[in-house]
Amino acid sequence: MTVIAMNTAPVGTNAEHTIVNPPPKQWVYSFGSGKADGNASMRSLLGGKGAGLAEMSVLGLPVPPGFTITTEVCTYFNKNSGTFPPALIVHVTEALQSIEKQMSAVFGDSSCPLLVSVRSGARASMPGMMDTVLNLGLNDKTVEGLSNQSGDPRFAYDCYRRFIQMFADVVMGIEHHNFEEIIEEHKKTLGITLDTELSATHLKAMIEDYKSKIQEKAGKQFPQDPNTQLWDSIAAVFRSWSNPRAKTYRKLNNIPHDWGTAVNIQAMVYGNMGDDSATGVAFTRDPSTGENILYGEYLINAQGEDVVAGIRTPQHLSIRSRQAQQSTLPALEETMPEMFRQLETIRGKLERHFGDMQDMEFTVQRGILYMLQTRAGKCTTSAALKIACDMVSEGLITQDEAVLRIKPVSLNQLLHPMLDPKAKRQILARGLPASPGAACGRVVFTAEEAERHALAGEKVILCRGETSPEDIHGMHAAEGIVTTQGGMTSHAAVVARGMGRPCVAGASEIVISYEESTMRVRNGLLRAGDWLTLDGGTGEVLAGKVATIEPKLSGDFARVMSWADAVRKLKIMANADTAVDCRKAIELGAEGVGLCRTEHMFFQEGRIVAVREMIMAKTKEERLSALERVLPMQRGDFVEIFKIMEGRTVTIRLLDPPLHEFLPHGEAEIVELANATGTAVETIREQVLKQAEVNPMLGHRGCRVGVTYPEIYAMQTRAVLEAALEVSRAEGRRVSADIMIPFVAMEGEVRVLRELINGVAQEVLGDDETEVAYRVGTMIELPRAALAAGKIARETSFFSFGTNDLTQTALGLSRDDAARFLKVYEERGLLERDPFVSIDQEGVGELIRIAAQRGRETRPDLDLCLCGEHGGDADSVEFCHKVGLDSVSCSPYRVPIARLAAAQAVLRERA
Amino acid sequence: MTVIAMNTAPVGTNAEHTIVNPPPKQWVYSFGSGKADGNASMRSLLGGKGAGLAEMSVLGLPVPPGFTITTEVCTYFNKNSGTFPPALIVHVTEALQSIEKQMSAVFGDSSCPLLVSVRSGARASMPGMMDTVLNLGLNDKTVEGLSNQSGDPRFAYDCYRRFIQMFADVVMGIEHHNFEEIIEEHKKTLGITLDTELSATHLKAMIEDYKSKIQEKAGKQFPQDPNTQLWDSIAAVFRSWSNPRAKTYRKLNNIPHDWGTAVNIQAMVYGNMGDDSATGVAFTRDPSTGENILYGEYLINAQGEDVVAGIRTPQHLSIRSRQAQQSTLPALEETMPEMFRQLETIRGKLERHFGDMQDMEFTVQRGILYMLQTRAGKCTTSAALKIACDMVSEGLITQDEAVLRIKPVSLNQLLHPMLDPKAKRQILARGLPASPGAACGRVVFTAEEAERHALAGEKVILCRGETSPEDIHGMHAAEGIVTTQGGMTSHAAVVARGMGRPCVAGASEIVISYEESTMRVRNGLLRAGDWLTLDGGTGEVLAGKVATIEPKLSGDFARVMSWADAVRKLKIMANADTAVDCRKAIELGAEGVGLCRTEHMFFQEGRIVAVREMIMAKTKEERLSALERVLPMQRGDFVEIFKIMEGRTVTIRLLDPPLHEFLPHGEAEIVELANATGTAVETIREQVLKQAEVNPMLGHRGCRVGVTYPEIYAMQTRAVLEAALEVSRAEGRRVSADIMIPFVAMEGEVRVLRELINGVAQEVLGDDETEVAYRVGTMIELPRAALAAGKIARETSFFSFGTNDLTQTALGLSRDDAARFLKVYEERGLLERDPFVSIDQEGVGELIRIAAQRGRETRPDLDLCLCGEHGGDADSVEFCHKVGLDSVSCSPYRVPIARLAAAQAVLRERA
Repeated sequence: MTVIAMNTAPVGTNAEHTIVNPPPKQWVYSFGSGKADGNASMRSLLGGKGAGLAEMSVLGLPVPPGFTITTEVCTYFNKNSGTFPPALIVHVTEALQSIEKQMSAVFGDSSCPLLVSVRSGARASMPGMMDTVLNLGLNDKTVEGLSNQSGDPRFAYDCYRRFIQMFADVVMGIEHHNFEEIIEEHKKTLGITLDTELSATHLKAMIEDYKSKIQEKAGKQFPQDPNTQLWDSIAAVFRSWSNPRAKTYRKLNNIPHDWGTAVNIQAMVYGNMGDDSATGVAFTRDPSTGENILYGEYLINAQGEDVVAGIRTPQHLSIRSRQAQQSTLPALEETMPEMFRQLETIRGKLERHFGDMQDMEFTVQRGILYMLQTRAGKCTTSAALKIACDMVSEGLITQDEAVLRIKPVSLNQLLHPMLDPKAKRQILARGLPASPGAACGRVVFTAEEAERHALAGEKVILCRGETSPEDIHGMHAAEGIVTTQGGMTSHAAVVARGMGRPCVAGASEIVISYEESTMRVRNGLLRAGDWLTLDGGTGEVLAGKVATIEPKLSGDFARVMSWADAVRKLKIMANADTAVDCRKAIELGAEGVGLCRTEHMFFQEGRIVAVREMIMAKTKEERLSALERVLPMQRGDFVEIFKIMEGRTVTIRLLDPPLHEFLPHGEAEIVELANATGTAVETIREQVLKQAEVNPMLGHRGCRVGVTYPEIYAMQTRAVLEAALEVSRAEGRRVSADIMIPFVAMEGEVRVLRELINGVAQEVLGDDETEVAYRVGTMIELPRAALAAGKIARETSFFSFGTNDLTQTALGLSRDDAARFLKVYEERGLLERDPFVSIDQEGVGELIRIAAQRGRETRPDLDLCLCGEHGGDADSVEFCHKVGLDSVSCSPYRVPIARLAAAQAVLRERA
Repeated sequence: MTVIAMNTAPVGTNAEHTIVNPPPKQWVYSFGSGKADGNASMRSLLGGKGAGLAEMSVLGLPVPPGFTITTEVCTYFNKNSGTFPPALIVHVTEALQSIEKQMSAVFGDSSCPLLVSVRSGARASMPGMMDTVLNLGLNDKTVEGLSNQSGDPRFAYDCYRRFIQMFADVVMGIEHHNFEEIIEEHKKTLGITLDTELSATHLKAMIEDYKSKIQEKAGKQFPQDPNTQLWDSIAAVFRSWSNPRAKTYRKLNNIPHDWGTAVNIQAMVYGNMGDDSATGVAFTRDPSTGENILYGEYLINAQGEDVVAGIRTPQHLSIRSRQAQQSTLPALEETMPEMFRQLETIRGKLERHFGDMQDMEFTVQRGILYMLQTRAGKCTTSAALKIACDMVSEGLITQDEAVLRIKPVSLNQLLHPMLDPKAKRQILARGLPASPGAACGRVVFTAEEAERHALAGEKVILCRGETSPEDIHGMHAAEGIVTTQGGMTSHAAVVARGMGRPCVAGASEIVISYEESTMRVRNGLLRAGDWLTLDGGTGEVLAGKVATIEPKLSGDFARVMSWADAVRKLKIMANADTAVDCRKAIELGAEGVGLCRTEHMFFQEGRIVAVREMIMAKTKEERLSALERVLPMQRGDFVEIFKIMEGRTVTIRLLDPPLHEFLPHGEAEIVELANATGTAVETIREQVLKQAEVNPMLGHRGCRVGVTYPEIYAMQTRAVLEAALEVSRAEGRRVSADIMIPFVAMEGEVRVLRELINGVAQEVLGDDETEVAYRVGTMIELPRAALAAGKIARETSFFSFGTNDLTQTALGLSRDDAARFLKVYEERGLLERDPFVSIDQEGVGELIRIAAQRGRETRPDLDLCLCGEHGGDADSVEFCHKVGLDSVSCSPYRVPIARLAAAQAVLRERA
């Protein structure tokens, strides 16, 4: 009985070659017996699994021998209509012979057959997405050999049956249920209920039926030749890289389609050879808490799939875990103490070696431990933070490595409530994960309802086609927001992220009827008042109440962030429009306000009427009089903000949206305004109609409003500077106010408006800058502004890249309308990532590069910031660092992400 | 009596200087007595008038001596808060002494006073826009000298009165009416009615009242010191460069604000010294017809202002003109034959010298002829063409010079009906001159009405807020179009230009009520059926019927165009969507179709229902079935176009607008579609709502439609290529079809769609390219596409710059919404020109440069075209030539403009 036992003979090496000509491509990398052609650094070539197996072999861990066919073969295979490189067959044959030597078994041999597994293994883990074939090498003859060697005919025929079924499914495309039906028929005929009751004889008969079914379905026989089995399986695994499931997974996880998968062929070992056999998964630390203990599950006399399948209850590895979970099933530490001890040793070895928490698979075959996989383990963010901090304390990794270890976007988990992973969920619809966190409440369809119910202490979810600035109060009142239109930077998404409200945007399957106060979803109808849950981290809209859990910020979080702060060069600011935002921004580490939008302030109770009068004014005098009334309110806003920010720079963007956004929308509001202002309803209706724009995004907005109605910008500037002066005097601290001109296209606009601002500043502040430091800067959010940056820089102290609008204009893509076709683009592989989520570096990024360069040519000390939604996206932050910006600004809840990403950018650059 | 007579003594030269240090700036240029410091080439420095006077002096023509203060002084003056360069006073004093010598008179001398005029003179003619002071040097003492010398006290005191009045107005800002009132009072007191009845004594008394009025109004006295008079007047003329009138004029005529004006100071001569004196204006050819005769008007015993004022009827110069106009007043040829002979000699001399038709001013003072001005004359386009051709025949200029002589945009005059210049007109409103030509018809408010009335033989003007593709048939039926919204490249403007229909766009003073079928204008209300006239060349909307005159294309036009064609390098194509367009394009010299928009075809009778079904289709099958019905219709369109174009390249743009543009708009259309398709009205309404976009310009349009619904592009490609094959076979001539993908943002789009097009081509044409040559190209109309041009060029044979959309996206400027604030921008000097009319070279032009360079790096033979509306703008065409494009394409009616502009670009480059 040595078929499956490990052979310690040296691995057969490939033929040596002289390096006169460039070496031929190495398509195959062997591993096993303490040696390997590859190692952990060769992940791109060998895939994660292959690299891990190679590295474990090198480390001398017990790995069943095998070899990896590289990802380059996959690429070759896909580019050459499913054919292999000519040399491959020779390399595979040699590598197989090496396994045969080590295992003292022969592939296809009827007395001492070598059996292998064929598994995919991509560079990034894609669990369950691609295909696997086990027990390969079995046929009508070798099954007898396996039976003899194992002394267990039932085991052998069960392996054979499983192999046929798997092979038929993966290679020949015959679905599982065909075979399940055969099993059921046999059990019915035999009058038995459990699979385990089937004897070797029964299995033999079933196998014949399996073969007939294959002949019937595929029109050809199940191949008896092990080599045919092998090559067909390899091809099938390569093909499975391109199956729809895998493609979707890659899209969701931003894994490039051209990476390809490797294929690992490895001698089989069995955890189901009796009570001295077992199989399990283990983590080097607890992936939920990060605690430094061997953590995992195992099953005696079982195969890997049994652990996953959930038919038997897996048992804990350590006594401590068993006790913690109040389990009565014995731990591995109790049933197989020697195996446990070996695993503990391996755990330490791997952690010391990789400096990272490992996720391992192991099998015990008749008292011997085999390692089948190791890879960096996935864990919760709080566990990851703890592990990183612990490992720094343990001397396993440096602080810099700890900083690099945390995925910035994973910090979202810490900052927002999550769905309880144990809770059951029924998905009603899917949209874009527009603002992270989970929320649960009753359905409402208007901002007014939202506010009314919230005041009554009820939790509500605001469901809208799309939101507008008028809905802000309702969004604030709601637990979460669902929209049926719009993308990742739609109004709803941007505002929700800013507020930290969970939001699912563009859930286009949902059809809302405001008239009937209903929303139609895939499987039915919801009415106002029905319960709904949403997960803004996944984009799922769920039926009823689903339990959520609250996050906590740990000391580990603070430690890692402090290391990050020490490293990063980018200054991290926050987009904050209110006192609440500002407090949250400081709490989460923002160094100032990089974008304070003034338009939201206009919608507050008691102001909107004055604002509307200002817009409807027929003369400059009427407008000035309305502005007079807005001034003290705006000043009050800024006083509060400057106080909270305690001397940190606050960058205020002058009014940006087109004025018609502030005008009344419905008939009721029109009448209300008519009454409030003593104007004819008809006049207001006409004005509203007249102000409407075909493409508001490209309309009369931003500094264009400032140029045409300078008195509005003058009022805002006055409010800012008077507030700054007031706070400075009250607190005896210099206040730093940056005033930012939005939607600039040309130098002249800035020149004219800077003069206006400076004029007001002169009136308010005089020449003295001891109390208030103010600067004038521009948003760069139009391609023309980026191209003309050299000239614009003459008039401005800083640029702030408004990448939302820059993306819209550079790509000609309305963020409100893009959802309906961007999906198709992603599906067809035309877009790697939503350009509203991560900067389109080739287009928008190029404009930023051009603007930065031309701007600094004119003014070397020009301050460069990015304040679009991209400021909270890790890749975009890295881009900003590389391009040499000075700061990024993002919504308060994303400040930690930006801080971490900025630090990682520095560390990666050093590497 | 020698005060004003010309002195033949040599001009005093300025002090010589050695050229060891860089020479000090020359601020003053003298002229007169057959010599001059300057010449005609120094227009920028001396202004048009100064350069002309200098050149005439050099030519030995009788020019009263004087000097020019350069435009650089104006620039200095404006930049230095209205102060003069320190050296100026010395230079002016020297130059004045030189005049004194030549005139044998002394500035301020009481017995023999020198009197001068102070006139503005900019680089480009700005008639009547800036200020002039005449008779300067008079005061209470010198007026006696003038009286003695002229022997005409009344003349002397009238000069003095006029001078005070002019000086008070120009220099001291006291308006004319103050003095007119004094005159009226005196006349009343004296009981006389005519100014001429006032004696010298009366005038003396009036002058005293004038002085009191000045003291009263200005709080200071009228200056008696001639030097004060002189310097104050110079300053006033410089200031007048910046008066609002002058600013507006420059804006309208694209004259840069920083050019500045020169000031000309010249000895006075008088045409009102008796019946041996006269004044007049003359053209070297007839400016209406171009005929080669001395043409002009004069008055005996008069001053220049009398000719202009229209109180006396001016007389013709030649007997021939007098007879032609059936005038009984004697011609100059009859009254002063010697003066006429001298003028004829001067005419020949000036034309031979300048090689251009001249516009001259002259004065005869007591039998001696003085030339006061010469400049290139303005004339009608047909006259300009005749003059250019005649001058080539006469050997005065070369063909190239003739080509340069014609202003491209002036060709519009030849191609469209014009308002009869003699007809009276009442302006109701002003808008943008969106499509040239005049039209007259009854007001209609819908495309349907327009069509109905036109079918009934009535002429109509279609008045809309804005037009959409659905209105095309109505626009065709109408004589002209007026819109209240939208700019120079709004839908109405673009389509109207394409059709050659006159159009006034964005006449925002007009308010249309569709419900009441009325339009409110400044002074009243118009109803459907009322008569209206519009001038698309000026943007005027006029009341009632105003007579129009029809244009004719002369042989001179053809000659000049053939010379232009021989010179130009740019290929000129036409934007043509219909058979009518294509015929017009060929007639006007287009070398092919550079842009054939396919969407207009979708709106034709009998198709729109199928198109709508295609859009509303729920499944691909339904869509394919609807497309099946559209295919033969589209094929028919292309067959017709290929036949007309006789083998010239036709560039077809696949469907570009968002699909919702094709959906029904009103309730009636929804019901109609519901009936036609057997769909529920509610379903259609929902679909229409669902397809609506917030920013359709940045929405689901262009190749995005092709990517999401490939079957639409496949159908269109099939229609194009099947048509091409059919025509090629029928006519035995190779057909050249370029297929163009619109609204490309990234390489992937082109790759996917090129494969689609090539696939269809393979099916239709096979591999044989002998019958049909087709290429695949892309529109470059998004900033991202321009930046990624290097990659996009991999997939494409040609680029066509869609500068309308590129302007919209680069500047973030919706052409439909921009009108309301672009006016303010132009007023405030932020925009030199409407970027939708002439390419914004700094922004949009930069993107074109980048794209051209990056595209050709990838593919050196990449064909580059521009097919936006800018293709018909002369400056933009010149830009295209400079950037190295291969062709431009514009609406048929602008093809001659483009041909001429392209030739001029070459010639200017050579110069």
